[in-house]
Amino acid sequence: MKQDKTSKTGTSRRAFISNSGLLLAGTVLASSSATEVEASANAFMPASPEPPQELAALRGDLVTANHILFDQGVVDGYGHVSVRHPGNPNHFLISRWLAPDMVTDGDILEVDFDCKIVGTEKARLYSEVFMHGEIYRARPDVKSIVHTHAPAVILMGISGEPLMPMYQMTGYMGSGVSVFDIRKAVGMTNMLISDPVRAKALVQTLADKPAVLLRGHGGVVTGTSLAQAVGRSVYMRVNAELQVQALGKKLIFLAPEEAKLASDNDYPKDWDMWKRKVAAQRG
Amino acid sequence: MKQDKTSKTGTSRRAFISNSGLLLAGTVLASSSATEVEASANAFMPASPEPPQELAALRGDLVTANHILFDQGVVDGYGHVSVRHPGNPNHFLISRWLAPDMVTDGDILEVDFDCKIVGTEKARLYSEVFMHGEIYRARPDVKSIVHTHAPAVILMGISGEPLMPMYQMTGYMGSGVSVFDIRKAVGMTNMLISDPVRAKALVQTLADKPAVLLRGHGGVVTGTSLAQAVGRSVYMRVNAELQVQALGKKLIFLAPEEAKLASDNDYPKDWDMWKRKVAAQRG
Amino acid sequence: MKQDKTSKTGTSRRAFISNSGLLLAGTVLASSSATEVEASANAFMPASPEPPQELAALRGDLVTANHILFDQGVVDGYGHVSVRHPGNPNHFLISRWLAPDMVTDGDILEVDFDCKIVGTEKARLYSEVFMHGEIYRARPDVKSIVHTHAPAVILMGISGEPLMPMYQMTGYMGSGVSVFDIRKAVGMTNMLISDPVRAKALVQTLADKPAVLLRGHGGVVTGTSLAQAVGRSVYMRVNAELQVQALGKKLIFLAPEEAKLASDNDYPKDWDMWKRKVAAQRG
Amino acid sequence: MKQDKTSKTGTSRRAFISNSGLLLAGTVLASSSATEVEASANAFMPASPEPPQELAALRGDLVTANHILFDQGVVDGYGHVSVRHPGNPNHFLISRWLAPDMVTDGDILEVDFDCKIVGTEKARLYSEVFMHGEIYRARPDVKSIVHTHAPAVILMGISGEPLMPMYQMTGYMGSGVSVFDIRKAVGMTNMLISDPVRAKALVQTLADKPAVLLRGHGGVVTGTSLAQAVGRSVYMRVNAELQVQALGKKLIFLAPEEAKLASDNDYPKDWDMWKRKVAAQRG
Repeated sequence: MKQDKTSKTGTSRRAFISNSGLLLAGTVLASSSATEVEASANAFMPASPEPPQELAALRGDLVTANHILFDQGVVDGYGHVSVRHPGNPNHFLISRWLAPDMVTDGDILEVDFDCKIVGTEKARLYSEVFMHGEIYRARPDVKSIVHTHAPAVILMGISGEPLMPMYQMTGYMGSGVSVFDIRKAVGMTNMLISDPVRAKALVQTLADKPAVLLRGHGGVVTGTSLAQAVGRSVYMRVNAELQVQALGKKLIFLAPEEAKLASDNDYPKDWDMWKRKVAAQRG
Repeated sequence: MKQDKTSKTGTSRRAFISNSGLLLAGTVLASSSATEVEASANAFMPASPEPPQELAALRGDLVTANHILFDQGVVDGYGHVSVRHPGNPNHFLISRWLAPDMVTDGDILEVDFDCKIVGTEKARLYSEVFMHGEIYRARPDVKSIVHTHAPAVILMGISGEPLMPMYQMTGYMGSGVSVFDIRKAVGMTNMLISDPVRAKALVQTLADKPAVLLRGHGGVVTGTSLAQAVGRSVYMRVNAELQVQALGKKLIFLAPEEAKLASDNDYPKDWDMWKRKVAAQRG
Repeated sequence: MKQDKTSKTGTSRRAFISNSGLLLAGTVLASSSATEVEASANAFMPASPEPPQELAALRGDLVTANHILFDQGVVDGYGHVSVRHPGNPNHFLISRWLAPDMVTDGDILEVDFDCKIVGTEKARLYSEVFMHGEIYRARPDVKSIVHTHAPAVILMGISGEPLMPMYQMTGYMGSGVSVFDIRKAVGMTNMLISDPVRAKALVQTLADKPAVLLRGHGGVVTGTSLAQAVGRSVYMRVNAELQVQALGKKLIFLAPEEAKLASDNDYPKDWDMWKRKVAAQRG
Repeated sequence: MKQDKTSKTGTSRRAFISNSGLLLAGTVLASSSATEVEASANAFMPASPEPPQELAALRGDLVTANHILFDQGVVDGYGHVSVRHPGNPNHFLISRWLAPDMVTDGDILEVDFDCKIVGTEKARLYSEVFMHGEIYRARPDVKSIVHTHAPAVILMGISGEPLMPMYQMTGYMGSGVSVFDIRKAVGMTNMLISDPVRAKALVQTLADKPAVLLRGHGGVVTGTSLAQAVGRSVYMRVNAELQVQALGKKLIFLAPEEAKLASDNDYPKDWDMWKRKVAAQRG
């Protein structure tokens, strides 16, 4: 499918600031909703040094990951993906506030654990960017995070049955996928992880596991690489879609040891194929 | 997918009348069925004044909404969407009798609460246009209405189980989604809301809620904006598709207060993305 | 999606016979299977007279119907659609042996109730063409027939639960959709309606109803027009897909009178839209 | 959908060796995972003689089969298909390690039963290539093998209910589809058939049947031709998708004799249609 030109000009919708220090949030985009926040840029924090070529490649892969996640039904207009900065483990890369399928290279921002934009740019961030910051802060092993909105994952999270590994592609689930219930942590909310308190509570439930579900909302999947976090979130969707068809039935899941033996997977054949597919969609 | 030229010439299938007063219904289109009616134009009612640019933009968005609703599985060949006229709250805009995916700018009509076409145009209207007129008449807060034919919504309406908010995208359902049973209201029918009596009965069941299901037929979703009505109807479909997979099972729905806190949403990221997608489909 | 040139040259794979009388079956196509038969042409029966323009339009619509039925998931590589000849009620038009999505104008044949090809052409026919011949012979009210392979229809036919009208689009099912069990009629078979005896048994089960299911095989849908048979078979698929999601659950179906009031439908908006869609797919 | 150029240059990623004998595994591709192995080429075994034209056509069909299997949801990034060498029954053709949708003619290798590459080429093979070698060794009647990853097939394999023929397209299942449980055969593993011992155990469970499921993994389908193995695996997917919708329900399956009578099918109409479809996708 040919894409229109709108996405190519996404960058122009972001203000660049070339001559000043700390800034407060600027004008809110016309289409913004009340649940979204605009992050202030912190110009005192220069962007992390990194061999430009490697960083550029990773930014490109992050853009591709955004498109793959939409194409694969992991996210809809919502959900997001981030990757830890390769040159500064205290920073991560993530798109500004934008539907994943709309993300282009100019939309990728460098952000610190407090969710301040690094450098002189100013942009609106996802209201739930805090889940990324707090997970990266608490979990040095995590290199990439996907927040999924896959419908079947949502259903599993409210079904009262645990998400379990059905085949070798989801072996990583064998250590358990807990359900985070925001109401038990912070009371009545709009369900969003839109501040550090909620994000820290989520991190508690995630603990040292690779993934967690959010009751009435979606899920979070981590990985030791961008490709792993993407692949795991795709196969979490497939696994959930299968499991919801057999709610209340007794299935034979992977044994814990089988799951562990099958959990080291970067999904390399999928990544190559998915990359080609989304590239072809964009002509 | 490239579209053929038929849709571009849709306008030419509508008769324009430049020299006369009130007209009766003219020739019926070749493909018309017995359940459809042709509305007479009321040339004594001039089209409502409105800054031309704003109105043109809204008409364009209404055309886009028609395409999005088909692309998102909210409507098939049937179903429709309308928006209250921005310059005259007693009028609304809606396509003439046409499958939503076929609608072009020339097909948009201005209609009053009695479902008379405003201005000098003559065209066939949807047989169920009366549901729009009566809801706009009774509910000043409603700015846009979608009549959905999503299959899963139909199944929920005959399942005996209530449609309930499963996640924050459908928080607006938290106030309850009743089922309108046309048989109880007006007896045996062809199931269509094809006259003002049936439409008024539907309005009674809708009451002050944002949405209502129609037993054996579909559903109606309202919003305070076109984007909201569209977004709500898309996520009603997703929610229904999930819920039908768990009929008879106990699920954990949003608490009423959570639903309320999550219900103020115009789905801005989705709207931008959906708009780009249907634009790309049309080259 | 652009189609390759193969379909355009489909005609060249059919032998035309310009100088002889009755012929026996010729060479079998390389890809033929054991269950398919080659019909002999009966050159003594000249093609029925018909104003050429009207007939050409109907042949074009029949080609389009083949493509729509594949696009709408009513048929896969198998299944077929026919229409009674407008100039000779004892003949009907149907494609030669070919996947519906591959059919082009040159593949349409005129066939009599005994499934002899009319005119001087020679071609391989569907092995199940007899179901068309016998239904047209027994049911003068039937103008078009679709043999569906929609998976959900197959599941309904072996579920032990009756296919029932869930909404106004399938009102025509209100008079009942029986299941034809070929084993009870003619014993152990390959399940195909591949001779007149089986076809006549099927006609007995169809009786005066608009549709019938075939146990372990698919279904047959009739209509008073090509558009009606196509539309009914599409919505039979949708209805079956919904019903299989609620097997064993109590649903509220249309009342018989509601179904009857809703059953007169040629699906005109769908037909226009589906026609445009398959035309666009073929560039 | 237009494909990018990557697939066209797939061949260039494979090393050709023109001047030496037996070689050990060379450099592993950047994206390789720990579960994959690189096969050494055995230059002492010359490629089997075969009329070049017939072999070239079969290689082309094997490439097409790879694309069809992805397009039809039988494989994802994983799974594979092979065909016995027409000129040497002790060899078979299969793609090098690559997602099926990415395979091009230059990726097809000739391999012997011990999974040594025949000729002077060196390439990475699928880690599970051994299932092909051992089945061809044990089952002279088998001419083609598909390893499916279709999600519904996976669910059937862990459901505790047998996969059964629901209609004539899957009659070949009538002789029974066993479930191979790798744990019972060789203990705790990563679930993969990645050595000859596991493959021989799989062959024991397959026995003389056309297909077998792999618990927590997928399935294997054989055929007397490439088209038959492909067609059977496609309809196994459809049949499984239907059966999982009715888990725990009593369905009417084909009688064993019906299944047998319906099992001789090369799916010729499907093959032609699927071939055209994937060709059109590649422009």
